[in-house]
This record gives sequence, structure tokens and C-alpha cells, in this order.
Amino acid sequence: MSELSSPLVTDLYQLTMAQAYLALGMRATAVFEVFVRRLPRQRRFLLAAGLEQAIDYLEALRFGDGELRFLDSLGTFSPQFLRELSSLRFTGCVHAMPEGTPFFANEPILRVTAPIIEAQFVESRLLNLVHFQTLIASKAVRCVLVAQGRRLIDFGLRRAHGSEAAIHAARAAYLAGFDATATVQAGRQYGIPLSGTMAHSYIEAHEREEDAFRHFLDANPGPTTLLIDTYDTRRAARRVAALASQQRALGAAGRIQAVRIDSGDLAAQAQAVRQILDADGCGSVRIVLSGSLDEYQVQALLAANTPVDAFGIGTHMVVSQDAPALDIAYKLEEYAGQGRRKRSPGKATWPGRKQVYRQRSAQGRWTGDCVALADEAMDGEPLLQEVMRDGRRIRDLPTLSASREFCRQQVAQLPSELRQLEHGECSYPVRISPRVEALAHELDARDELHAH
Amino acid sequence: MSELSSPLVTDLYQLTMAQAYLALGMRATAVFEVFVRRLPRQRRFLLAAGLEQAIDYLEALRFGDGELRFLDSLGTFSPQFLRELSSLRFTGCVHAMPEGTPFFANEPILRVTAPIIEAQFVESRLLNLVHFQTLIASKAVRCVLVAQGRRLIDFGLRRAHGSEAAIHAARAAYLAGFDATATVQAGRQYGIPLSGTMAHSYIEAHEREEDAFRHFLDANPGPTTLLIDTYDTRRAARRVAALASQQRALGAAGRIQAVRIDSGDLAAQAQAVRQILDADGCGSVRIVLSGSLDEYQVQALLAANTPVDAFGIGTHMVVSQDAPALDIAYKLEEYAGQGRRKRSPGKATWPGRKQVYRQRSAQGRWTGDCVALADEAMDGEPLLQEVMRDGRRIRDLPTLSASREFCRQQVAQLPSELRQLEHGECSYPVRISPRVEALAHELDARDELHAH
Repeated sequence: MSELSSPLVTDLYQLTMAQAYLALGMRATAVFEVFVRRLPRQRRFLLAAGLEQAIDYLEALRFGDGELRFLDSLGTFSPQFLRELSSLRFTGCVHAMPEGTPFFANEPILRVTAPIIEAQFVESRLLNLVHFQTLIASKAVRCVLVAQGRRLIDFGLRRAHGSEAAIHAARAAYLAGFDATATVQAGRQYGIPLSGTMAHSYIEAHEREEDAFRHFLDANPGPTTLLIDTYDTRRAARRVAALASQQRALGAAGRIQAVRIDSGDLAAQAQAVRQILDADGCGSVRIVLSGSLDEYQVQALLAANTPVDAFGIGTHMVVSQDAPALDIAYKLEEYAGQGRRKRSPGKATWPGRKQVYRQRSAQGRWTGDCVALADEAMDGEPLLQEVMRDGRRIRDLPTLSASREFCRQQVAQLPSELRQLEHGECSYPVRISPRVEALAHELDARDELHAH
Repeated sequence: MSELSSPLVTDLYQLTMAQAYLALGMRATAVFEVFVRRLPRQRRFLLAAGLEQAIDYLEALRFGDGELRFLDSLGTFSPQFLRELSSLRFTGCVHAMPEGTPFFANEPILRVTAPIIEAQFVESRLLNLVHFQTLIASKAVRCVLVAQGRRLIDFGLRRAHGSEAAIHAARAAYLAGFDATATVQAGRQYGIPLSGTMAHSYIEAHEREEDAFRHFLDANPGPTTLLIDTYDTRRAARRVAALASQQRALGAAGRIQAVRIDSGDLAAQAQAVRQILDADGCGSVRIVLSGSLDEYQVQALLAANTPVDAFGIGTHMVVSQDAPALDIAYKLEEYAGQGRRKRSPGKATWPGRKQVYRQRSAQGRWTGDCVALADEAMDGEPLLQEVMRDGRRIRDLPTLSASREFCRQQVAQLPSELRQLEHGECSYPVRISPRVEALAHELDARDELHAH
């Protein structure tokens, strides 16, 4: 097992708490839920993502000898506890929103039901996995919403926060509607279509730009994208047009599939390049734009009628630049059959084992969500579905392609005001059911009683 | 080898360019440099970090059969090229600033000298590794600068962008002066001291808060930190004080090492809790504060004379919330003995194989840096040191502890205006040497000639 998927990818307190639970014989069933307290100001909805990796983690959870020896070396853990850890498996149930489901603040997106040692222990890595893909899918979908069908390609590897981030970001972006990634390992691991062009250094390593272009065509069969902004974009476009006509003469029309522009005034350069290409019979050569692009720039470029066929999106998407973390939490909602509630200022939680119901008008329009108790009768479609029972997935999760199509359909149903980029109060109504509220009051009253 | 350290953690174009270089017989030596084009507005200096992981990557680079089969399946690569890939190793040299060195915009922090196929291929993962730890060390050191010696603990795992991010962030923060991490795997992998407390769920799983506290002490030998903001912080502080006096009666004074407050008005609560503890003979029980803290809050809490002994810092540090990416690049500076230069608008580079000289006054004050050609005579201390030759490190890199101490000394030498958090024009002077400027002009003139 890789160090990155070791069960030691956890917070130390998960282990000290587990030791306490064990010593106390606390083995009753706990229910924890993952939810986002508040949406970032720049998001009007979020997309649930990362469920497959979370389930993979739960199924594979086990401590190896090396890990137990390391824990032993800390002097914090009893031999009895380490013996228990050596046989720890996740034996619980998971309910979750399918990947690609839009959701809102205070809605549980994943619920774990398991003996408290297990349910508590998995918190850190489960959040780490679900938070990141949810973060990135929720950013990437904003590009998809404004791209008017142009191809979107993930260029994020170099500035992603590590290799797992790069690979999971490619997956989350594809789920949200991106078309391809440049990250080869993401293509291998998840079957995401790969796309790539060339770097400026490749051009610079040649004495002449036209040689660099021609050599690349010679060496790489199949459709090719040439990078044209290393020195002078318009001059390079004319070189491409000349090269394309030579290719046509050789009967290899279509070999030059696209040109990429990565700097400067992209709108003006794309217009100029389009004219140069069209005037020279290269109407089929596409234009790819890249260079610190985000959803606002994509929207602005298209609003200005920029002739563009594809966008390479890197840093802004892969780190979710304008909101690089979500206020996500994993909270105890029930233990030993009783609702539980945290009352810390600004961080109070809604207690009980819950479900989210999405309600629709007769015309199918989403009218609002209700967060209710799981056993409460409620109108609407329940969004949390059982995916894991007794520590095993109850059926195969949807393929990434199927989740991507599901996501597309879900996003198409979003109320139109939520599909705008603009900030503003998120107006989508999320109600807390009367029974959840009543349970919260009941628990507060009980705690007050204990305090005196 | 783990999937996350596969050579396929690269951009597709690295492979298509390599195929072109090979087909063309372009095997001359290339020099690439890593630098940051502009500092984020919220940073006055950056800290070089991640070199050890970069060197590990370069030494381990090789393609396995599964990876070659995957590449073959894409239909893009020739059998001859895949054969070459199967024997590809990194055989070049690396010069770099030692980890923990403060640096500024346009200064190369790492230079790769190798046959162009190798030097180009390693770009994506090298940047991915060096960017992230540099990003995090440069954020974490800002907490260190204002913490007035209080302990700083990394709580970032759950919102880090994946497991590698969590582990590398713990390393980068420790390098920058943090004292400990909660991420167990980071403790195992890098020997970073571990620290942990308890979660709210642990308290909530008990009927009574005082039982939760007592049970945790019973189950965990050694010094313990109790979390006191689940319900009512002051009431919990009184419970801790009562428990501490029982512990003293049992001869176990000091078992309750600290209390942690994670929500609400931290300054007011810490004051109240300090009074309660002191009045009850618990003057040695420390106070740990956490909850969405960043360097500005740490500074403000200390400016308000908040009684606090340690800070748990999570999300803001681990995603570098106010600047989650650096404008970092890896650019070709020389090929086959000739300087190279990119001239794209806003992204022009300084050509040639370079060195950074840090110049000091007679009193040892840093007076400015000069970016010069590597063979140029220049006053000052050269910051880039040879660390790898012919594909092997020339000696062991410093231990993480040694790098942390080096970093501490370096940061102590920074001009005092750069050690303030406040924004503002970065006033530290970085000059480009006359010979670098002359080389840039010479290359521009040559390119103009070729254009006509």
C-alpha cells in the first residue's frame, strides 16, 4: 500500500479517541454526516464528488505491521489497543448523494453509520477525499456553465497541490463537464480523454519557429496543436497557414488541428489569427486559448464573440483560486440511538440521522429542499442513497462517464438564477424540517438539565 | 511504485515533445530554471521548499511496463520512442537554493542541466512538487513571524488538497518553523513531532461532558489536551479545574496539559478561561486556540494580550487561502550552449544559465540580490548550490531539522520591513545583471533577423 493511502493519513486525535472508546467499551452505533456549513460567497451551489474514492478508502482500511510498529513507538498507545487496531475494518453503512448532485449549505451529502470507533476514525481521510473533489467539481462546473459548448481541457497539474490533487482534480473536472485533461496518469487511472499541445521551450529549442512546427508534425502522427505565441503571434499564424497549405499539397490536410495562444490580449489575438487562417484556407484549424483563465474570462471572451474552439484551464480551476477550501464538516448526529448536537457558537449542528428531500413543481422545476429526519414522511425525492452496507458497497458505483452524464442532467435542471456566475444571496430555499428542529430543542433542554 | 509517483504524473505534451526531440536527434544539453514571475500581493518574500522531494523524484524516474503499455494504447507513440522511454533516466545536474532560503520574484531557485529530452520531461512533476511546498512554507512562515514563540500546530489534513498535499504541507510548515502536526503519516514519514487533542464528537458521544474528560484521561496516559467549547466554554473550564484538583489529589498533577477552544470570541473566552483556571490553582494548564485561524488572527490575538500558549492552524495555512498558487514557471534558458528567451507579452524570460547573488552590508544586513549569469563575476553570496550531478545527489541533503534551523536563521536575517504581514510594494531590490540584459537584447536582435 502506498504511503499516501496509509491509514496513518489521519489526525492523531482519531487514534487517541479510539483508544478511549475502546477502554470505555463504547461500541454503540454512531451516525456522522458530512455537510458544508456555508457556501463560499462565489458559489451558488456545490456539486457532490469524490464518493468513489471515499468508498475505496473505507473498503481498503486496515493497519499493516509497519504502521502498528510506528504507533507503538510513540509510547501513547497500549498493546491491547494496537491489537484491536490490527483487526480494525470498516463494517458500517454509507448513504450518500450520487456524484454530480448539486447541493446547498447544511445538507448532508454523505452519512456514515457504524460502531463509533470506526465511524470516528475515518473522519480525517473521508473529509480530505470528499472535500477536495467537491471543491474542484463545484469550481469546474462554473466554466462549463459559461463555455457555450466549447471544449474545456484541464491543464492544472503543475500548480495542483501535489499529485493526488492533480489526478483527483482531473477526475472532478471531467465529472463536472470538462472534456479532457493533460495529466497522463488521470487518463490512465480514470479513462479521461487526454489532450496536449507543446511548450514554449520546444519552440525556443529550435533556431527557427517554422522548423519547430514542421518537426513536430513530422514526429507526431495524428492531429496536432501548434503553440503560436512564443515570439510574435500573428507572424506565427502566417507560418502555420503556409505550413498547412504545404500539408494540403501533401494530401495531409487536417494534420494541423489547432493553434494555441497562451498570453497577451487573447480576444484581439484570436480575432487576428482567425482572419489570417481563414484568409489562407485554414478555416478548419481551430483556436485553443489558455493562460490563467477562469470562468469569468471564459464568459467575457465569448461575450466579445472571440473566435475560440477550446479553453485550457489550469491554476484557477485546480486550486479553486477564488475559494480554495469549503467550510465542510463531519459531525456526530446520533450515538446509541440518541440525537447529538454541537452548540459551539457559529458551529451548531442539526441533530439526528437525516435525509435531504428535493421538491419539484408540477412542471419539474426545483422549488426547494428540505432537510428532514431519515424516517420522517416528506414530499420530494430523497437525495441520499445507500451505497455501502456492512463495510461493502452494495452494488458497483456508476462509471465516471455515467456520473458525468448524470451531473449534466442535474445541472441542466438547476433553477436558471443559480446557473449565473454572479455573486449574490443564494436564493435556493433549504428548509429544516419541524422534527429536526424539535429534536435540537429537546437535546438543548436535556443538556441544560445536566448542567445544573 | 505508487500511482501517485508514476512518471505518468506528467502533462501529455512532455511525451509528444520528447518524441519530436528523439525523432530529430535533438539531444544537446538544455538548461531550465524554476522561478516565480511575481509574488502574490500578500507575500513580501517566499521560502524555497520541496527540494528533497524533487531530487527523490529525479533519482527514481523510470517507466515501468504497465506505463509503457498504457502509452502504447494511446496510438500516439512509436515503438522506437517507447523503447527509448523504457531506458529513460535522469542523468543531469541540479543546482538549487537550500530549502528554507528566502527568495524573490525572477530569481531562479532551481536549475536543471540535462539532455533536452530529460530536462523537458521532468517539468510537470518538478513544478508540482516545488510549487506546493514553496507555497505552503511561504504562508506558514507568516504565522511563525507573528506567533511570538507560541507553539504552532498543523491541523490541516481534512481540507488539504489530497493526502500528498497534507503530508507535504506538514513538512513545509515544519520547515518554516511550525512545532508539530496532527497528521500521523507526516510524523512517520518526516519525523515531525505529533500533536493531537480530541474532537467535539468525542464529547457529544458521552451523556456528560465531565465523563468525557475523565474517561479520556483514564484511557490516555501522558499529557492531555481537553476540548472545552462543545457546549459552554466557561462551564467546561470549571469542570476541567475541578478535575485537575482531583488529579492533583491523586498525585497526577500535570496530566491535564492544556485546554483547547475552537469557536466563538477566542480572545474573550481565553481571558475568561485563564481566570477560571488560575483561580483554581491550574496556572500550569495551557490554552490552545484553533478554528479558522490565519496569521492576521494570530497577530491580533497576541496584540490583545490573549493568554494563549499554542495555536492550531489548519485550512488557511494548508491551502494558502489568500494566495493558493504561485506564478511559478520552469523555463528554457539555454540550449546547445546558446541562451534562449521567451518573449510572450507579460511572460518574457531572462535568458542564460543564471545564479543569484545575495549582497550584504558590512554589518551583514541584506542590501539586495543580483540575478547574474552563472559565470559572471559578482559580489555577494551565490544562493544556488550544486546538489545533483550525473543524475545522483552529490551528498546527502540536510535533514529536515537542519533545514528548519537554517530557515530560522535566514528569516531572522531578513530586513525587518519584510517581516511585517502588511501588504505593500516589496521593497527588496533584485537587480538583473548587465550581462543578462545584454544577452536578452542579443537574442531579440537575432530573432528579428530570422523573422525577415
